[in-house]
Amino acid sequence: MAKQQIRKELRVTAIENGTVIDHIPAKSVFLVISILGLDRIPHQIMVGTNLDSRKLKKKGIIKVSNKYFESEEINKIALVAPSATLIVIKDYTVVYKAKVEIPETISKIVKCINPNCITNVENITTSFTVIDKEDLVLSCHYCEKFTKKENIRFK
Amino acid sequence: MAKQQIRKELRVTAIENGTVIDHIPAKSVFLVISILGLDRIPHQIMVGTNLDSRKLKKKGIIKVSNKYFESEEINKIALVAPSATLIVIKDYTVVYKAKVEIPETISKIVKCINPNCITNVENITTSFTVIDKEDLVLSCHYCEKFTKKENIRFK
Repeated sequence: MAKQQIRKELRVTAIENGTVIDHIPAKSVFLVISILGLDRIPHQIMVGTNLDSRKLKKKGIIKVSNKYFESEEINKIALVAPSATLIVIKDYTVVYKAKVEIPETISKIVKCINPNCITNVENITTSFTVIDKEDLVLSCHYCEKFTKKENIRFK
Repeated sequence: MAKQQIRKELRVTAIENGTVIDHIPAKSVFLVISILGLDRIPHQIMVGTNLDSRKLKKKGIIKVSNKYFESEEINKIALVAPSATLIVIKDYTVVYKAKVEIPETISKIVKCINPNCITNVENITTSFTVIDKEDLVLSCHYCEKFTKKENIRFK
């Protein structure tokens, strides 16, 4: 009886409609939640982390019911979890599945590291060319300063 | 085939050994993760939030494999999620289940709001008497200032 009870309590069902972000490096799972603002939305969310993975050593997975991400949000995921896979589910069926990709240019979502850059002084949308996808180096369209992986801050 | 695949991918099994924190108010789930430092541990973690609940409107649940919380950690949970239930599981069986409780006195885990309090100036362990469990008001043992719910910061 006790066994049955706890099994029921811990059961997590598949989502009917929504998005699954899979193959997130375990150390970045709560960062992805934070940069996407998933800690402040009313949707049902399931998160698993430090799960065994063939591709990664330890992976995390996030499932958000009834939510579909915009391209800017997907670019944020790509910047902090480039190994991630995005799976869109409708009526329990996969209707889209793809690895996220770091785009050639990044607009709006990242702050320029240069405090004197016009995008930090005036109300101007940032824009960067990705000059190194592997090590993640962004070159500002306005001041040409490089913003590196460890300095990326989201707007 | 596609349906089967995704169902498998989303399946989350019950934990064999560890702790379940249930009946967390949905808005406090990621706060509980943060104050317990669960975003920095290597244990398998499952989180569900904005789930329907009879007791609360929307609840969250956190399951941590192979981890058992110390009384100081349980007191932290009680302070930010007083409705929470703690369930300890060994070999898929519930061996302990109880609602967390705000204790009469709180030591070590909370900072005093008074910047001039000796606990903020010297290396002295904080200690508070809980004078209101409902609204959560703590009275400092040293300076007698009240630290209220909205000002509680953890050490």
